[in-house]
Amino acid sequence: MTGFPDSALTCNDFLGGRLKLWQPRDGYRAGVDPVLLAAAVPAKAGQSVLELGCGAGAAVLCLATRVPGLRSAGIELQADYADLAARNAQCNEIDLSVHVADLSNMPTDLRQQHFDHVIANPPYYRPGAHSAAVDAGRRTALSEQTPLSDWFDAAARRLAPRGYLHMIQRAERLPDMLTACVGRLGSVEVLPIAPRMGRRAELLILRARKGGRADFRLHAPLILHSGDRHERDGESYTDMVSGILREGRPVPWPDAR
Amino acid sequence: MTGFPDSALTCNDFLGGRLKLWQPRDGYRAGVDPVLLAAAVPAKAGQSVLELGCGAGAAVLCLATRVPGLRSAGIELQADYADLAARNAQCNEIDLSVHVADLSNMPTDLRQQHFDHVIANPPYYRPGAHSAAVDAGRRTALSEQTPLSDWFDAAARRLAPRGYLHMIQRAERLPDMLTACVGRLGSVEVLPIAPRMGRRAELLILRARKGGRADFRLHAPLILHSGDRHERDGESYTDMVSGILREGRPVPWPDAR
Repeated sequence: MTGFPDSALTCNDFLGGRLKLWQPRDGYRAGVDPVLLAAAVPAKAGQSVLELGCGAGAAVLCLATRVPGLRSAGIELQADYADLAARNAQCNEIDLSVHVADLSNMPTDLRQQHFDHVIANPPYYRPGAHSAAVDAGRRTALSEQTPLSDWFDAAARRLAPRGYLHMIQRAERLPDMLTACVGRLGSVEVLPIAPRMGRRAELLILRARKGGRADFRLHAPLILHSGDRHERDGESYTDMVSGILREGRPVPWPDAR
Repeated sequence: MTGFPDSALTCNDFLGGRLKLWQPRDGYRAGVDPVLLAAAVPAKAGQSVLELGCGAGAAVLCLATRVPGLRSAGIELQADYADLAARNAQCNEIDLSVHVADLSNMPTDLRQQHFDHVIANPPYYRPGAHSAAVDAGRRTALSEQTPLSDWFDAAARRLAPRGYLHMIQRAERLPDMLTACVGRLGSVEVLPIAPRMGRRAELLILRARKGGRADFRLHAPLILHSGDRHERDGESYTDMVSGILREGRPVPWPDAR
């Protein structure tokens, strides 16, 4: 049924074991990023969410676990990952509609739908900018084949009026992300994510709203690890991040605008 | 000599009294912003600096005070403020060349010069966006008559190869600032400035480099005040900001790229 044989998969706990995800042992594996992304979305029961490039479903399934009663959908270019997302949804008794398609060329049934929320964790690396991953699926998941502006375009088209996009990306792409919002989405807010207090942001979550007209906002950074640079790295998450990763708590944004 | 009668001026200490500035009692008065801007510039003795819209000269004179041996120039649209900048330079024994001109239409002698550094603290408010200041000079200093992109254009034209622009602005203008850098300046870095720890940035300093090609960087915020929101406001500056404002210390950026 799935393109991955079971022997190529591992099952991992997310949200303190509330969500179990099958992932390819050697392919693209979800880290903390999709969990943080899902935690940033102010979705409510009865609303709908679409994940662009959902992979094995980590972000959308984390969100559906935290907010029961969502109508959830995902679109994924790689059929084997899309199958895995469907399998993960089923295992966790989450209703997820998975579409195998290119987000720049959506199937007709998706093009007729609008969503209260769109989420995305696009590939982080531009082709050729980093050493290529050996695994082809992992390479596709990490390497930007579809321009970032196409992700914003797809999100803007699929969002209902006043709907929210949340995207997690490397901080260095902020100029491209803000440029891509122009004419498509407004009320942009940025949550920088820094490895430690006093360090620069390596990631960020961008929030934008369809039809939003509020001023841009740059929030205080979310700090991943406690302690300073002199301590050894490890799972020394701050209380806030630990609550997000292990207990399924939401990111505390200021009030929606 | 100056357009302001002495009775309309006050003399204020900056950098712990190392710099004394005459400013109009009822016009535009420098706050901490130009001091922070000047502290962010990695200028060295023997280099040159141009301030766009220098007003009474607060930023460029703070920089010249911290870094002796700079060749300093300012351009200011309002003749009475330009005169005041020249007077302030003289009082503080700083060699400052002041040009009364519109930065979108620079005089020929300036157009023949290039600078290692350009600095700017452009007006913060779009015309009509806030209640107009009663004082006409203050209104001109606070209200954006010249589009922000023109400031970037002027800076890019006047910068020597590898020269730096530093600009302080309200954080909500970051999308416009990043857009204005495209095709003009690179190696953009942003230092958010937040009133207190955990609060969103209200200001930021943008650094960009002529001919720079490095990735965008989003630094940890500079925190102005210690304590949290429950304490009363006051001059409770953090040690770092107090060192900048009172002792003329520089902003500790990571190494130049």
